[in-house]
Amino acid sequence: MSYERLIYLADTDAAGVVYFAHLLSICHEAYEFSLAQFGINIKDFFKDSPVALPITQAEIQFFRPLFCGDQIQINFTARSLSENEFQLQYKIYLAEIMVAKAKTRHVCIDPTARKRIPFPESLKNWLGYLSTLEETGI
Amino acid sequence: MSYERLIYLADTDAAGVVYFAHLLSICHEAYEFSLAQFGINIKDFFKDSPVALPITQAEIQFFRPLFCGDQIQINFTARSLSENEFQLQYKIYLAEIMVAKAKTRHVCIDPTARKRIPFPESLKNWLGYLSTLEETGI
Amino acid sequence: MSYERLIYLADTDAAGVVYFAHLLSICHEAYEFSLAQFGINIKDFFKDSPVALPITQAEIQFFRPLFCGDQIQINFTARSLSENEFQLQYKIYLAEIMVAKAKTRHVCIDPTARKRIPFPESLKNWLGYLSTLEETGI
Amino acid sequence: MSYERLIYLADTDAAGVVYFAHLLSICHEAYEFSLAQFGINIKDFFKDSPVALPITQAEIQFFRPLFCGDQIQINFTARSLSENEFQLQYKIYLAEIMVAKAKTRHVCIDPTARKRIPFPESLKNWLGYLSTLEETGI
Repeated sequence: MSYERLIYLADTDAAGVVYFAHLLSICHEAYEFSLAQFGINIKDFFKDSPVALPITQAEIQFFRPLFCGDQIQINFTARSLSENEFQLQYKIYLAEIMVAKAKTRHVCIDPTARKRIPFPESLKNWLGYLSTLEETGI
Repeated sequence: MSYERLIYLADTDAAGVVYFAHLLSICHEAYEFSLAQFGINIKDFFKDSPVALPITQAEIQFFRPLFCGDQIQINFTARSLSENEFQLQYKIYLAEIMVAKAKTRHVCIDPTARKRIPFPESLKNWLGYLSTLEETGI
Repeated sequence: MSYERLIYLADTDAAGVVYFAHLLSICHEAYEFSLAQFGINIKDFFKDSPVALPITQAEIQFFRPLFCGDQIQINFTARSLSENEFQLQYKIYLAEIMVAKAKTRHVCIDPTARKRIPFPESLKNWLGYLSTLEETGI
Repeated sequence: MSYERLIYLADTDAAGVVYFAHLLSICHEAYEFSLAQFGINIKDFFKDSPVALPITQAEIQFFRPLFCGDQIQINFTARSLSENEFQLQYKIYLAEIMVAKAKTRHVCIDPTARKRIPFPESLKNWLGYLSTLEETGI
């Protein structure tokens, strides 16, 4: 799955480059974009939902700086770790050079009880769909 | 009421100064800080509350740029406009020079029906408290 | 000029809707997108440039809340106010209903001296281009 | 070294809790606060400086959610990895319970050539100072 994005002024800081934490937010946009593309209503998904998908771990590595106006491409893949946990991997490219990579790990919980619950059907289908894309190399 | 704050790297952009919209967020921090100081539980206030206080208007004027590391002071005052609407005014100072000023207008609503309702008692008291400070010049 | 954008989780807050200041950032994205579309290198434009375009005033009015997953459209127009000052007006639509409107006022300065200077040629052309669009109703 | 901070509405998202990437920004605030406390001019440090300290890696783990209004404390330690690389570790506490922990790795570079250079004296002193604090258990 691929997501394209212009780097905006708000993504940068006074050091002249993208502020480190903002690139993780941009990776999360790619994930949301993919859910929306798959037909999942992300409003229902993230707000007042019987299911929440909090991030338990995130990490990012930077190989080259990114600047305002850069047009980046994020390729990401998803992997189920169990019936209630998945991991996303993001590779961030600028003109075909990988400039950063990131990972986020998510658990599926009941947001009221804050206990783990199995993925809802829609998420299971989305995870399956992403795996298929990966196998076929799209 | 007064709020002090260091300007952090995340507040700035590649032009080297504070990103315009971030200064409005910093003004909102001053408002939240004041509610918390007054003993209002802002978690209850902003989440799953029978009352919401959405902003209907915001404006900001910049007189001088602000840089990473600047220690700013925000003086703000509140004014009821009706039983369900109030306005906050913020003056942002750097070393006693006013570098920006801002206003936000808030309405009190029932977040489910999204209809206006009168201020809850706690907010009425907070508005009264801020007016008193102003009269006595604190 | 028109800009489309999905509302992401990072744009929202615990009240469940778009955080007020973030919608101003999204309006600024529309402006940057338009510069980039016109062929202006926004990296050069916002960083280490002989010209800076700081915002001196911004304002926004909200008519309806926006939620995560909403697909918004921003229509914006530009107007020169003098040889070194321009104003942008943004109308934010959700499914053809105007949910907010905003304005930003920018001055053209020499970022070292922090004195006003006339617009560079590229910006003059962009302002001219936007005026033409408006006249022809595009 | 310790840094206290109220969680503001802008730190949260529509899921009702702190947005994951924002907690990394708050950790970076702790680092900047510490530099400022030590007498390092962070404006000079992050803007137009002969030295830049870009982050090459960042990671964060979340154990419990954080909400608007939570008063957190961040304890952090620094460790030189070489003459041009250091690592910061952050433990985020809410009422004496560790709710998250994070790491950032920084390299010291010449921002024009984007090549590694040894730490400037001020940074070396700050790293030494933080090590002493740690040894003495402050």
